[in-house]
Amino acid sequence: MADRLTELQEELREFVRERDWDRFHDPKNLAMLIVSEAGELVAEYRWIQGADADAYASDPEARARVEAEAADVGIALLLLFDRVGVDPVDAMRTKLQVNRSNYPSSLVRGTADRPPRGDATP
Amino acid sequence: MADRLTELQEELREFVRERDWDRFHDPKNLAMLIVSEAGELVAEYRWIQGADADAYASDPEARARVEAEAADVGIALLLLFDRVGVDPVDAMRTKLQVNRSNYPSSLVRGTADRPPRGDATP
Amino acid sequence: MADRLTELQEELREFVRERDWDRFHDPKNLAMLIVSEAGELVAEYRWIQGADADAYASDPEARARVEAEAADVGIALLLLFDRVGVDPVDAMRTKLQVNRSNYPSSLVRGTADRPPRGDATP
Amino acid sequence: MADRLTELQEELREFVRERDWDRFHDPKNLAMLIVSEAGELVAEYRWIQGADADAYASDPEARARVEAEAADVGIALLLLFDRVGVDPVDAMRTKLQVNRSNYPSSLVRGTADRPPRGDATP
Repeated sequence: MADRLTELQEELREFVRERDWDRFHDPKNLAMLIVSEAGELVAEYRWIQGADADAYASDPEARARVEAEAADVGIALLLLFDRVGVDPVDAMRTKLQVNRSNYPSSLVRGTADRPPRGDATP
Repeated sequence: MADRLTELQEELREFVRERDWDRFHDPKNLAMLIVSEAGELVAEYRWIQGADADAYASDPEARARVEAEAADVGIALLLLFDRVGVDPVDAMRTKLQVNRSNYPSSLVRGTADRPPRGDATP
Repeated sequence: MADRLTELQEELREFVRERDWDRFHDPKNLAMLIVSEAGELVAEYRWIQGADADAYASDPEARARVEAEAADVGIALLLLFDRVGVDPVDAMRTKLQVNRSNYPSSLVRGTADRPPRGDATP
Repeated sequence: MADRLTELQEELREFVRERDWDRFHDPKNLAMLIVSEAGELVAEYRWIQGADADAYASDPEARARVEAEAADVGIALLLLFDRVGVDPVDAMRTKLQVNRSNYPSSLVRGTADRPPRGDATP
């Protein structure tokens, strides 16, 4: 039985196919889609103070916008994973393993009051 | 039985907890993480011609980088979904439904040689 | 007598010409360059609390990085302005005029504790 | 006599002061503003083929949008330079000098059919 993400990916494929949008969806264009959607998500938070950022999403209207913007990023990302033929969960799990060895908790926890600069996951 | 994405989300939670990184992960900071990772993904493709963009990911080294950058975006996005308490698959499915009604295939397909400007999914 | 920005633009043109990089610099690719550089700038601040963000740039090393990342965005942006044949100062002045009429200080100041959502300049 | 960029910076300062927006403009928030505006610029080009990207800006409506989006990025960037107390032209000139030594034309030109991956200016 297919899991929920696999089902969603199939729905996305159908959505694109019905509109004949495959021709726009080379990986370069999809990378641009991802970052422009991520920019819209950032726009939601740019004038919110960090201390208020959690509370912000408890307002129903703000929450709906954050949810929609985050979903846009996710959809664009799934389209890219699909286009390059990579399973998203496998790729994320692999990367998480890399992050685990790059940032061993014994080293990172406690000694640093913030994660090392420049790292991926934080 | 939990599906694969749910399992990954639990692993991510543990990864963050072990490092005591929750305090850095307010939604504002996570939105910044998402867009900076998305910027790295875009960097992979910025000098690749669109016509070569599909072939690019067939080179093993390039593919590994694309996979890792896309995974970074995905991990950051899952952290945000988790922080605001939204199920990613539900949110994407809801947004896909919105896109379906905003871009009916009967209207969009064929008449336009490219999707309307400014839309989300494309 | 040419002003400093015009002189810099001429130097940039020469830099690109000497490397024969014009062929990579279509506006689409330059837009990708701009956003990927902007992502690196964002990465500098993603784990810094808003209240500490001003102080951050007073540390000499952090300042040097911020300066270099901001300069990268600026250089990429000047390359784009040049490619599309638009004077950057004219364009910004025109946009500032639009912002002035969209956000009259009599309306925006005081009544709102933060700028209207979704606006450009803030 | 002040040059055109310096005059524009003074106008921007006044624009912000009149609206009492300084309190929103810490460098972290301005970095977010820059990247979200850059995302809008990218959105202009995401469905345009690279080969058509130069021609795109010759259409008056498209050109006006590109001009406005690029100006938004520029304004946001000037606000950041101002906030951290760095002269934009000096910073860009310094960075250009770094790029010159990192990418000597004798080495980069001709031997590579595209610039080295991961570099800043391209």
